[in-house]
Amino acid sequence: MRRGIERLRGFREIYPEDQRVRRRLFQAFVEVAQSFGFEEVEAPSVEPLELFRLKSGEEILAQTWSFRDKGGREVTLVPELTPSIARMVARRRDLPRPLKWFSIAKMWRYEEPQAGRLREFWQFNADIFGSPYPEADAEVIALSCAYLDRVGLRSQYEVRVSDRYSMEAILGPRAGEIFPIIDRMPKVGEGETRAALSALGLSDSEAERVLEIASVRGRWEEVRSTVKRLGAPDYRLRVLDELFLVLDSYGLGDRVIVDLSTVRGLAYYTGIVYEGRDRAGRHRAIFGGGRYDGVVSLLGGRETPATGMGMGDAVLELMLREAGLWGLEAPRADAVVMWIGGDRELSLAARAAAALREAGLRVDLEVMRRRPSRVLSRASREGVRLAVIVGEEEASAGEVSLKDLESGRQVRVPVGELPSAARALLGG
Amino acid sequence: MRRGIERLRGFREIYPEDQRVRRRLFQAFVEVAQSFGFEEVEAPSVEPLELFRLKSGEEILAQTWSFRDKGGREVTLVPELTPSIARMVARRRDLPRPLKWFSIAKMWRYEEPQAGRLREFWQFNADIFGSPYPEADAEVIALSCAYLDRVGLRSQYEVRVSDRYSMEAILGPRAGEIFPIIDRMPKVGEGETRAALSALGLSDSEAERVLEIASVRGRWEEVRSTVKRLGAPDYRLRVLDELFLVLDSYGLGDRVIVDLSTVRGLAYYTGIVYEGRDRAGRHRAIFGGGRYDGVVSLLGGRETPATGMGMGDAVLELMLREAGLWGLEAPRADAVVMWIGGDRELSLAARAAAALREAGLRVDLEVMRRRPSRVLSRASREGVRLAVIVGEEEASAGEVSLKDLESGRQVRVPVGELPSAARALLGG
Repeated sequence: MRRGIERLRGFREIYPEDQRVRRRLFQAFVEVAQSFGFEEVEAPSVEPLELFRLKSGEEILAQTWSFRDKGGREVTLVPELTPSIARMVARRRDLPRPLKWFSIAKMWRYEEPQAGRLREFWQFNADIFGSPYPEADAEVIALSCAYLDRVGLRSQYEVRVSDRYSMEAILGPRAGEIFPIIDRMPKVGEGETRAALSALGLSDSEAERVLEIASVRGRWEEVRSTVKRLGAPDYRLRVLDELFLVLDSYGLGDRVIVDLSTVRGLAYYTGIVYEGRDRAGRHRAIFGGGRYDGVVSLLGGRETPATGMGMGDAVLELMLREAGLWGLEAPRADAVVMWIGGDRELSLAARAAAALREAGLRVDLEVMRRRPSRVLSRASREGVRLAVIVGEEEASAGEVSLKDLESGRQVRVPVGELPSAARALLGG
Repeated sequence: MRRGIERLRGFREIYPEDQRVRRRLFQAFVEVAQSFGFEEVEAPSVEPLELFRLKSGEEILAQTWSFRDKGGREVTLVPELTPSIARMVARRRDLPRPLKWFSIAKMWRYEEPQAGRLREFWQFNADIFGSPYPEADAEVIALSCAYLDRVGLRSQYEVRVSDRYSMEAILGPRAGEIFPIIDRMPKVGEGETRAALSALGLSDSEAERVLEIASVRGRWEEVRSTVKRLGAPDYRLRVLDELFLVLDSYGLGDRVIVDLSTVRGLAYYTGIVYEGRDRAGRHRAIFGGGRYDGVVSLLGGRETPATGMGMGDAVLELMLREAGLWGLEAPRADAVVMWIGGDRELSLAARAAAALREAGLRVDLEVMRRRPSRVLSRASREGVRLAVIVGEEEASAGEVSLKDLESGRQVRVPVGELPSAARALLGG
């Protein structure tokens, strides 16, 4: 391969053996989101850089694929979907609330590639706009769980929930500065966290208290009294009560816990935040989200409570591979159709392929003019079940030979009867 | 709305009413491609600019969204998929040929936006690698037709086929320079075309002959003798014979014609080329493609015959809208679930929603705490069929009320019996 035309670092080429599984994962997200009453939207993949500066602050700009377009405008490949979706909400005041929207979109971040983190990836998004109530957060969390359960990861993950308003009450006026330090703790460890808190001007005992708070973790009914004692306001306890009431009713009590160290990196979250994590603790977040009640009005819309989550495809793939749930798929085709001879045989083979496709079968017409023995052996190896052969003898009789590659059984039928004969073999 | 954060010109925001239809169109392409035995692949959306310079020449560079990344490298948002896919083929010598690959990907072109042409769009691609035979071209054309038929455009389009090798023999050594002039003719008209041919050094009678050649158009059996008389080599006539034999066997004789003015813009095509066009002649090409036997080896792979097509979503949408085939869709949800009261009722409502979703229904749990009358009237307006109501009375009895919004009929059932009761109403 020539140098210089390789794909860029952190980007993927996905071959059929993997894309088969991915297509099923994408389709499952569509189905699960629809089962929760969410509707799909699509946003641009390139946006004015300003859109992200406005919402996420300068911090995100270093990590974007941003550039000046030919008109001299600062633009970026989208690093996340929320600002664009929020702008779409802001624009359409006519749509009745709540809006329950999902999206499947490619995104780009200019970060150092590593396991579960790429420069180009896909993200599943789900958001509810218009409801200030915890049952809206519960719906987004439940949808995320239903999806992970559906793809086979039920016992592999947990969802960690926290509440920024409670944490602000508990941590006091410096909460906003402490959040990023807590957020980085899993990456940098306890020592560096203490140093960062000290640099912020906290005393050793104050730093110790932050670490204690961040270690609160467990089922809501177990930690509720601790959260209350630490100083969470009663009305927030009530919000969390209602959130967990719905989640428990959905049977998610074993998968959704409180974890006060889950504060989420982005500055715009308000209230409840949540993250899906692998139980083994090996990977980055599977999904993350929370409330962002201020964003739609920031983008020119009316005040709109909002909650939503994004789930990247990279960590999901790592977990599915570890769980042995990657790559189990049916063969590409149900049948191969081949011919030996001239125009008459080719024509009959094409008609046979068309008839089987119309009947809903996945059909490979031989386009390499290989010897039938080669075609048959490749088809058998790939798990293709049926072969249709048109030779001179068959064509003279206006028929085709249909062979079951599993049993070896072979019959001769007119093209018109081919679909029912094929279905009979596949059914039996 | 604030200035400066609007979406970029030529980019789209797609709301649920349109995305519903688009999702179905995308899914239909997956299904049709699979029925032809094609497998899906995915390529990066950002590539080294060099990849396109190599394959498509400098001409394409002015029309790309290209920029220098933070590492100083010249990169571009992909304007087409063929180079990336061909590189994927070049890399994997282990995969047995033929490779029949499809892809659904976003693309970007820095062109002036107009009807059917956007700066960001989706494209369906289908390619066969490894077969030099016309039945491979026929498969790609047939797949394209099967797709357009499937989405309801059967009587709205035609496919125009030509053969670059025949045209080179007919036009002589200057064919390569004449192709782009013929390609531009529909846009610039006959006068400018004559001028361009004259600027190339052709005499008036030579220019006249080019215009005559470009006007050859009709079913293959009607124009075959003309194409032969003009000077197409016998072996190319034979290739076209075989191509149309397969297409006719597929029942596509009424939709696929020869049109010698169809030469395709890009320099890399070899042999057969094809374009899908609306019969009314109002739009740009619906899809376009052809043979590009030299590209895989140009990218470091072994010599690999190849044929493929790309179909953009913008012209497809215009045609579907004109045909009245856009926007006919079922309601978002099958059922809404609402509650009046406190924790007990909310919990029961959540359990009811979960039970219906598990049974495969699309369910909207009320997250706005609105009065039931408002929820019911919105649901009726949107065509939602069922409503589940949990009030104090129901909750005391451990039951829910199920209402058929079409007939007005209402029953009370325990949550466990809700799915079967709902199915009974939906079925009847």
